[in-house]
Amino acid sequence: MNEPSYPLHLQRLVEEYLESLDFGADRRAARLVEAMRYSLLAGGKRIRPVLTLAVADSRGVEPATVLPTAAALELIHTYSLIHDDLPSIDDDDLRRGRPTCHVVYGEDVAILAGDGLFSEAFHLVLDQQRADSGALLAVVAEIARATGVGGMVGGQFMDVAGLAADHDDLRVMHALKTGRLIEAAIVAGALLSGAREDREPSAGAAEVAAYRAFATELGVLFQIVDDILDETGDAAVLGKTAGKDRTQAKATYVALFGLDEARRLAEETHGRALDALRALPGDTAVLVQIADYILRRRH
Amino acid sequence: MNEPSYPLHLQRLVEEYLESLDFGADRRAARLVEAMRYSLLAGGKRIRPVLTLAVADSRGVEPATVLPTAAALELIHTYSLIHDDLPSIDDDDLRRGRPTCHVVYGEDVAILAGDGLFSEAFHLVLDQQRADSGALLAVVAEIARATGVGGMVGGQFMDVAGLAADHDDLRVMHALKTGRLIEAAIVAGALLSGAREDREPSAGAAEVAAYRAFATELGVLFQIVDDILDETGDAAVLGKTAGKDRTQAKATYVALFGLDEARRLAEETHGRALDALRALPGDTAVLVQIADYILRRRH
Repeated sequence: MNEPSYPLHLQRLVEEYLESLDFGADRRAARLVEAMRYSLLAGGKRIRPVLTLAVADSRGVEPATVLPTAAALELIHTYSLIHDDLPSIDDDDLRRGRPTCHVVYGEDVAILAGDGLFSEAFHLVLDQQRADSGALLAVVAEIARATGVGGMVGGQFMDVAGLAADHDDLRVMHALKTGRLIEAAIVAGALLSGAREDREPSAGAAEVAAYRAFATELGVLFQIVDDILDETGDAAVLGKTAGKDRTQAKATYVALFGLDEARRLAEETHGRALDALRALPGDTAVLVQIADYILRRRH
Repeated sequence: MNEPSYPLHLQRLVEEYLESLDFGADRRAARLVEAMRYSLLAGGKRIRPVLTLAVADSRGVEPATVLPTAAALELIHTYSLIHDDLPSIDDDDLRRGRPTCHVVYGEDVAILAGDGLFSEAFHLVLDQQRADSGALLAVVAEIARATGVGGMVGGQFMDVAGLAADHDDLRVMHALKTGRLIEAAIVAGALLSGAREDREPSAGAAEVAAYRAFATELGVLFQIVDDILDETGDAAVLGKTAGKDRTQAKATYVALFGLDEARRLAEETHGRALDALRALPGDTAVLVQIADYILRRRH
């Protein structure tokens, strides 16, 4: 089976932008920046920033103009991976086929590299000077919520604490741990290209809500496929140890439902994502392509 | 010698506000929030948020209106302490007289508690709805810079890597590790109460620069006194192990210059801080009181 198609032109934009970041640090912090770049430039599909660019593109906004915020979301994703991989959390030695940050740079530097990426992410968003200040504030608020205890960190905690015992818990855990940041990537793209989110939803102001509905399905889809790949993928393609979730007795979609039912759930969720896409304005072909990719990806 | 006076009315405002924060998390993340609050509510003089309030007050702005941002700076300070205390970094068991976060909640939860406090700090700033959006964006940018590789995290890295061997390195390390966040606290207070910082400094726009000059001296003063107290203080008053810097052969002002010269440097820096204060508008009596407190504090 061939790897499904992916918007490589957007991935390339992100990659070049990330490669250009040196975080302007004092030379004394050179090794910290090296650790940050080591993890940041380990490859990957860059799904979050590509989503930000794809949403802007679909709304007729030049993708390059939202690159700093798109990249910020990849910095945040990388920060969460570095901390997740630490010995006291998931204790992973391998990530994207390479030794993890703490294996190469030591645990102390890895913790600080994660912390630094998080700060620099906000710095990038704020550097995006062409955006109007209302949109920028909304993006910062979105990222703060998506990463906090009601988002990514809360989900990581539930995972660490082994609190995801049934389907409902599992859904909440993943919605927080991975879903909220994917949602933030999509919503940021919308906000920076003119979509408005009113606190009092009215007829004309449900635009961001439609992006959130799409993002929610995409996040769940992403996680189900991730669990399937962990069970069935081989380590060389995955770039990490396959079957690790099972060995660690983690609650996953496969553990809860079995492989066949998990695959059916993935198809069903993909269908709902495409339904949600139909409510969005503009040319959403690239967003469809990404949803298809997430369903059919092999790593 | 009596403890010098301190603006307790501002400290009390901060304390009550911090106490009220529950981060609105899912009940499943209750223990994470407990760990965050455990470290956040361990007491202390709350110097950073008190500075934010004091600057607002000096400019005729009701201190309570800048409380969320002031508190955000204490959340960030607490996050940095939690990560600093981790076994792979400073390996401290005791902080403010109590077992450190990782001792009580485990290393995994402590890492996430720090991460969560950082996210929630931005959340607090953005919730400050009465401020104008230009000022809020400037505050977020200030905090991002102050905490990143060109700020707090960069300074922590230099400390961890043992890169502070001479006076120049020591000055840079502390300016980044503690100075920049103290500066952000002061600048945030100024920005939220109407001070403007132009990218092209002109006659009328040097206002924020004057606050930065004061902040720089105050940050250095804070660190010199910290080093003196580590050498001379007793553990019961300090709430941490005295003499630890010396045992760990850390570069400190005392190690580099000896106790007498460090004390002379502290007096001299305090004098420069008061000089810088004279360039500031409004009634700066409380800021003078804080500078005096930092010089004469016993823990």
